[in-house]
Amino acid sequence: MTDKIGVVLLVGAGDAIGAAVGRRFAEGGYKVCVARRDAAKSQRLVDELTAEGRDAHAFSVDARQESEVQNLFARVEDTVGPIEVCLFNAGSNVNKPLLETTEKLFFKAWELACYAGFLVGREAARYMLKRGRGTMLFTGATASIRGGKGFAAFSSAKFGLRAVAQSMARELGPKNIHVAHLLIDAGVDSEAIHQRMKAATGIDAKEIPPDSLTKTSSIADAYWFAHHQSKDGWTHELDLRPAVEKW
Amino acid sequence: MTDKIGVVLLVGAGDAIGAAVGRRFAEGGYKVCVARRDAAKSQRLVDELTAEGRDAHAFSVDARQESEVQNLFARVEDTVGPIEVCLFNAGSNVNKPLLETTEKLFFKAWELACYAGFLVGREAARYMLKRGRGTMLFTGATASIRGGKGFAAFSSAKFGLRAVAQSMARELGPKNIHVAHLLIDAGVDSEAIHQRMKAATGIDAKEIPPDSLTKTSSIADAYWFAHHQSKDGWTHELDLRPAVEKW
Amino acid sequence: MTDKIGVVLLVGAGDAIGAAVGRRFAEGGYKVCVARRDAAKSQRLVDELTAEGRDAHAFSVDARQESEVQNLFARVEDTVGPIEVCLFNAGSNVNKPLLETTEKLFFKAWELACYAGFLVGREAARYMLKRGRGTMLFTGATASIRGGKGFAAFSSAKFGLRAVAQSMARELGPKNIHVAHLLIDAGVDSEAIHQRMKAATGIDAKEIPPDSLTKTSSIADAYWFAHHQSKDGWTHELDLRPAVEKW
Amino acid sequence: MTDKIGVVLLVGAGDAIGAAVGRRFAEGGYKVCVARRDAAKSQRLVDELTAEGRDAHAFSVDARQESEVQNLFARVEDTVGPIEVCLFNAGSNVNKPLLETTEKLFFKAWELACYAGFLVGREAARYMLKRGRGTMLFTGATASIRGGKGFAAFSSAKFGLRAVAQSMARELGPKNIHVAHLLIDAGVDSEAIHQRMKAATGIDAKEIPPDSLTKTSSIADAYWFAHHQSKDGWTHELDLRPAVEKW
Repeated sequence: MTDKIGVVLLVGAGDAIGAAVGRRFAEGGYKVCVARRDAAKSQRLVDELTAEGRDAHAFSVDARQESEVQNLFARVEDTVGPIEVCLFNAGSNVNKPLLETTEKLFFKAWELACYAGFLVGREAARYMLKRGRGTMLFTGATASIRGGKGFAAFSSAKFGLRAVAQSMARELGPKNIHVAHLLIDAGVDSEAIHQRMKAATGIDAKEIPPDSLTKTSSIADAYWFAHHQSKDGWTHELDLRPAVEKW
Repeated sequence: MTDKIGVVLLVGAGDAIGAAVGRRFAEGGYKVCVARRDAAKSQRLVDELTAEGRDAHAFSVDARQESEVQNLFARVEDTVGPIEVCLFNAGSNVNKPLLETTEKLFFKAWELACYAGFLVGREAARYMLKRGRGTMLFTGATASIRGGKGFAAFSSAKFGLRAVAQSMARELGPKNIHVAHLLIDAGVDSEAIHQRMKAATGIDAKEIPPDSLTKTSSIADAYWFAHHQSKDGWTHELDLRPAVEKW
Repeated sequence: MTDKIGVVLLVGAGDAIGAAVGRRFAEGGYKVCVARRDAAKSQRLVDELTAEGRDAHAFSVDARQESEVQNLFARVEDTVGPIEVCLFNAGSNVNKPLLETTEKLFFKAWELACYAGFLVGREAARYMLKRGRGTMLFTGATASIRGGKGFAAFSSAKFGLRAVAQSMARELGPKNIHVAHLLIDAGVDSEAIHQRMKAATGIDAKEIPPDSLTKTSSIADAYWFAHHQSKDGWTHELDLRPAVEKW
Repeated sequence: MTDKIGVVLLVGAGDAIGAAVGRRFAEGGYKVCVARRDAAKSQRLVDELTAEGRDAHAFSVDARQESEVQNLFARVEDTVGPIEVCLFNAGSNVNKPLLETTEKLFFKAWELACYAGFLVGREAARYMLKRGRGTMLFTGATASIRGGKGFAAFSSAKFGLRAVAQSMARELGPKNIHVAHLLIDAGVDSEAIHQRMKAATGIDAKEIPPDSLTKTSSIADAYWFAHHQSKDGWTHELDLRPAVEKW
């Protein structure tokens, strides 16, 4: 295993972005740790990567619980190795008129997309600061920089996460920890969005115009790029959208 | 009382900004309701305004509790009158290195500056939408648009509040509710900051260069201006800082 | 005339915004100097204000010519009095596909909206710095912060003007000169836009929904507000749009 | 030559960023065309690349002259091949107090950094639109998004260029032309800046802390990345600064 480049920990790693980033870093020789609410759901990815000779592990974590986040980092560091790269990718889009936005919904949107991001980012920083190196990656969205009708809860959480990432970047950059925030200003090409589009518009996945949704592999490439930048030229924020997107 | 113009409700109304906005609207003929954790602390302001022949009321509220916010609005509407203007002004600056930012501190910063703002804004909207009119005012800060070293918690909360205000503005504007967000990019001339400066730098309040802190009356004037704009030209966001400020 | 508050010079002052700002400051007791390509076109405004007992003057200027701008300021200072407030309001919206945007069109858009703004702003600063006081007002637009299809020329000019205003604000604020930039994110209720709408959509001015265009008087109020702010709390940038605007 | 991937045209290609981007794309198999005021100054780069078996050409162009820009594109297309990638990199930092910013200086800053960028971008678009493919790269700076004391001329030009890039991106993206704008928020590690630092601070190039200036190779890597993005996920804007930079 000594020939492996390092460990990448993906928190909030689902079947879309999380899996793609996992594959990208596995291809690049990284040991991949995917963490989500239920590790069993990542078993297929772990099996796939293992079958290809990669080193992959699945963990269960509720990233909104400080103790669970701390345990996750401790376990990964103990059993897999020092975390070189950490992606925080949790968050769930919600769109409700203001008066139907319950306090529970507002809290839950924040807890998952922002608070968990703080817990994960701070814990990653704890380990990375000791070693004076590491990369933190945060997934942002259009809602990270634009509030909108129906988006009080989701954009509030995503604005908040962006502030965490920016504050971390300014504090940790001089300590050699690279913090990057990716603004995905697009629909992501995933099973989830296909189903949502089918439900909303009746359009079948097969009929979606090619390249009109951002592929998870393109997102993974952007993270791979950011992680590999030389320390004299780090990107903190970049956007990503399909060529055909109206913006 | 029929000659009064309307009711202004100030939530998170302390002795600095809250009191100044209260005075400004009282002068303008508004009935003033000031709400903070402990109504007793506003008694002096209420007495002062009452002595001047104004109509002023103090309320206790923990704006982080949905039921308390709902009760506050119900009481004000029942006992004082329909709320025409609502200011949300709570939030407490914190500056801690990332690793010393406890989950409790992060939560509390958000709960007070962002979550309470959502609860207050939504409740105001509930009453204002029924009447098809009203103004919501939110106090922002430099940290609303800039994350920084030591500001993960506070800027995350203020970014989040800004998203709430922007989402509300986009949703409620067409329904004739004006939502404005004031970016105070300055220290505010108040007892609290005098004490903090004294502690940090030894500089006495008397020695602070004149006009180098933003007066609470100037903040009140900005809110007064925003509230009185004609509906063909509403301002959603404006900044405010001393002439001498470096920015 | 000693009771007049001061002189306001409006450059690029047409029949819409320029005239409204002129009226607003005249009402407030200011001596009003309106300057545009052809002074004769302002004669009606001057007559109207004079008939009301105001002090109003029209000047011809091509604000894109340094010597003309210098002459304008010299004449106003000599014959009317020290300029207290200066508004730069020139600029002409253009929308052309990129390949049809000739170099001449690109140049002209910049020359009028940006270069002239620099010339006027610098000249105003020359007089105001000597006196250690004054207010500079710049009219911005949606295109000041957003490039768009067909807007390479116009948004480039307006972005450029915004940079001039921001640079002036940072340099001149500490010298007691207030520089404010107004982002009018709306159609302006004017003869010109009525004609354009009629041509584009067939909608007659009478049929335009009320309050769906920003009134020039609301713009004038915003400038009046900015000019009267106390120096401990100056606004550099504020937006303005109708309540019903989608943004 | 059939094995070459395509042609990259670098306009405003000096010995720093221009040469590095030239090397990067040459390594990647591109035919490299470098264009600057005096082609002779690029001879060393052309010789170096030729010696390595690359295909490199130098052109003289005054990019502020429409006819020269048109001739440049015609010559490159005729003699080297279809332009796949075009970088606009011209622009010269200037810092002068407002009152010392002559109209000539303001004009020249704009002419070089903004107007030439428009001419180059439009001409590139003309060829690329016919083929339905291509990448346009623009070099931005801190001054592209922040005006500042002494920067009225330079930031106005760079704001203006950013508007051109953004307008082009929105218009040309759906036509499969990728427009990216790189915000270099840093000093660039180059002979020019070494000399400026030496003059300003007496610090010798050898004493500059490592990685405190952004290397031209890191800038080239960012452009290489942007050009190779899949069309389902294009980046329009990304920043770049050293890890140690205070921002």
